[in-house]
Amino acid sequence: MNWRDMPEMDEAADQIQGPATGLRQAGNGLLLVDLYELSMLEAFWANSMAGTAVFEFFVRKLPSSRGFLVAAGLEQLLDFLSGLRFSDVELAYLRESGHFGVRFVDSLAELRFTGDVDAMAEGTPFFADEPIVRVVAPLPQAQLIESRLINLLHFQTVIASKAARLVLAAPGIPLIDFGLRRAHGAEAGLLATRASYLAGFAGTATLLAEPTFGIPVFGTMAHSFIQAHDDESTAFERFARVRPDRLTLLIDTFNTEIAAQKVVQLAPRLQAAGIAIAAVRLDSGDLVEHARKVRRILDEGNLSSVSILASGGIDEDQLQRFIREKAPIDSCGIGTSLTTAPDAPSLDCAYKLQEYAGRPRLKRSEGKATWPGRKQIFRRYDADGIMIGDTVALESDRVPGEPLLQPVMRSGRRLSGPSSLVETRSYAAASVKRLPADLRRLESAAYPVEIDPRLKKLAASL
Amino acid sequence: MNWRDMPEMDEAADQIQGPATGLRQAGNGLLLVDLYELSMLEAFWANSMAGTAVFEFFVRKLPSSRGFLVAAGLEQLLDFLSGLRFSDVELAYLRESGHFGVRFVDSLAELRFTGDVDAMAEGTPFFADEPIVRVVAPLPQAQLIESRLINLLHFQTVIASKAARLVLAAPGIPLIDFGLRRAHGAEAGLLATRASYLAGFAGTATLLAEPTFGIPVFGTMAHSFIQAHDDESTAFERFARVRPDRLTLLIDTFNTEIAAQKVVQLAPRLQAAGIAIAAVRLDSGDLVEHARKVRRILDEGNLSSVSILASGGIDEDQLQRFIREKAPIDSCGIGTSLTTAPDAPSLDCAYKLQEYAGRPRLKRSEGKATWPGRKQIFRRYDADGIMIGDTVALESDRVPGEPLLQPVMRSGRRLSGPSSLVETRSYAAASVKRLPADLRRLESAAYPVEIDPRLKKLAASL
Repeated sequence: MNWRDMPEMDEAADQIQGPATGLRQAGNGLLLVDLYELSMLEAFWANSMAGTAVFEFFVRKLPSSRGFLVAAGLEQLLDFLSGLRFSDVELAYLRESGHFGVRFVDSLAELRFTGDVDAMAEGTPFFADEPIVRVVAPLPQAQLIESRLINLLHFQTVIASKAARLVLAAPGIPLIDFGLRRAHGAEAGLLATRASYLAGFAGTATLLAEPTFGIPVFGTMAHSFIQAHDDESTAFERFARVRPDRLTLLIDTFNTEIAAQKVVQLAPRLQAAGIAIAAVRLDSGDLVEHARKVRRILDEGNLSSVSILASGGIDEDQLQRFIREKAPIDSCGIGTSLTTAPDAPSLDCAYKLQEYAGRPRLKRSEGKATWPGRKQIFRRYDADGIMIGDTVALESDRVPGEPLLQPVMRSGRRLSGPSSLVETRSYAAASVKRLPADLRRLESAAYPVEIDPRLKKLAASL
Repeated sequence: MNWRDMPEMDEAADQIQGPATGLRQAGNGLLLVDLYELSMLEAFWANSMAGTAVFEFFVRKLPSSRGFLVAAGLEQLLDFLSGLRFSDVELAYLRESGHFGVRFVDSLAELRFTGDVDAMAEGTPFFADEPIVRVVAPLPQAQLIESRLINLLHFQTVIASKAARLVLAAPGIPLIDFGLRRAHGAEAGLLATRASYLAGFAGTATLLAEPTFGIPVFGTMAHSFIQAHDDESTAFERFARVRPDRLTLLIDTFNTEIAAQKVVQLAPRLQAAGIAIAAVRLDSGDLVEHARKVRRILDEGNLSSVSILASGGIDEDQLQRFIREKAPIDSCGIGTSLTTAPDAPSLDCAYKLQEYAGRPRLKRSEGKATWPGRKQIFRRYDADGIMIGDTVALESDRVPGEPLLQPVMRSGRRLSGPSSLVETRSYAAASVKRLPADLRRLESAAYPVEIDPRLKKLAASL
């Protein structure tokens, strides 16, 4: 069910909000910046430095546990840029804060984002040194957005990249995001639903993802539901009668196999009431072993149509084991290992000035040097459409291959409406299929990314 | 400057918000739940199960990289509970969604949190198996809050625990949070400022932390500021003249030592204009080596009052090295290693039903069994006030030691107003000082936590 198709609900979703938690709407405001952004803006303002700046966002080096990354977060970035302005309350705060001159703060009232953005489509695999977003705008605008731009692109890229690996590890097993509770805050929980769905997850347990992004939501029950009853069978039956749709019973609260037998005993009575058990959920112990035993109990109990959902600390290694050992696991809930991406919870990424006032700019800090100028990535494929190599070059130089950065915003206006998440998801799936086989197998392998000789020459000349 | 002391600004801060980013106010609404919470609530409602439930939040097992944790996030939890209600728009959405019966959704309109909360004070060190929050409320209320309760307590505890380690690693070196950009979303960035300040950080670079929490904010400049000028000295001077307060110059854009010499050359001219350089910032390369060379250049240039701020991938190991090698580093900016806590980005925590309708409840899932009943932690100290051991016992049993869980909410009302973050920070510092010396040295050491024999007996009897 996609709520975007229901105009009245889409509008309602826009207003979904509730009581204050003591947190302001952090992500929406322009005070969610590093103080230094505004310090620099004041110096730019005082020196009339408003020439055109070119910034690019890229990852310096892949984490050792990643053979490729998946670009994500562009949609939220474009939303942020489209609505960028200081509110009256924020301006009042800045004036009173004592950090800035009043005339400078007054000048911020008119600030909007009027620049251009070129970007790699969300769902595209990418590698170190490849810019995924390029911003061309008057220097103060391009600088001001740094903190939130990185914050938005970094997190969703972390999660989409992790999700793509999980999906590759478990061909044919639908994966569901169970990770809200251990995500780092509310926004992380919500954006992780999007980034993981984009990268091939089947859906999420987080209800808000449905009205916000149209993502399918799934739910079972918690151990507390079973524990609140004096008897496990009673808990199953009560839940079944009230919540018969896609009915999934959690069977590991006391003893998994005994609970599976209770499910078998309960099934005919439910069936008489027109209720079918869709699945049972395992959440602890050796999931492969339990799945085998439970499968046998269900099959012998005439419940071969009941599927098995596994959850509880599942990561890529475990998913590969499920496949290798042909465990009778039909779907998985993935929580913490998705939403905190513990093997690569951050990326060594940066948003760097590459050109100002028509001149390429270089940074030479040790271990953090950048390639100057406006760049493009050209991707080459073999006859079967499999990726064989990328070249990072100056945009102005022609190089064989498909140019990955495409215009998405001009003069502060988006070139198209909000993207369809379902289409982005299809594109991501198709793109991941074009990765070299060793990367798809999650083996450590280096994908060839060349720096064009003309770009090297420019860097050397600066 | 603490904005809480300025009534008009506190009110303004309440309204700080800006343009939509396409994200709803995720954390504030009651749709940011796992779907299963509402599924269970519907089953409870249909079966009139509204007896008193006791849930406790605890960590099952410490990460291998943590000898202790620091409790945090209670303040935001209490805010969330105080304002808990479904908005009309949320109710309309639930009705239309097709997931629930209309009469059940209607019943949610009246739902408020009317329960009791006992909790460990924020800033208290704690260990595995020790509940830090206990909720006693009608079953549906206590169940509904599960997802967000864990989301709030888990994240701030992750960050406060990491921050406490960083602070212990660097006695005498003020640490500043630089981690907004790589935090997992907006809320994580903002709440990390609070959790780290609470645990001893000196402040943050994130401006929004000042109006929201009264946390001191600090800022320098980015490499882009230098790069946007044709000449590094010009960049320094322009910045200095516009932003003379606590002036910190970033000196690693091209060559750190050459830039330090430029600072020496610039200083007299600035001094003539009444501008003092407060610090220089190093952000790349071998920070110890650069700090030594830069210190010498500054001292020889008559700038011994200029301090050195280091940043760039700093974690506990590097801080300990700075201390061990007596590096002339006066303060540090800590980014990614604080806000993503890569060595322990999540905790194996749970919010579990321990009692319902007057009967203790047990969960026996393999590796995830819980201790039943309402519990209390009793902490014992030696004559010097150093912690020597904790006992987890039933609340009703008397055990020697200080009881750590204290009443903070009764019948849905907070027992005191919002806590002072400065006081919480002092309490946290005093509490961390009482940890055994080996834990304070960040050595791997087990702190003795006993389970009271009467609690073991109860668990065995269920």
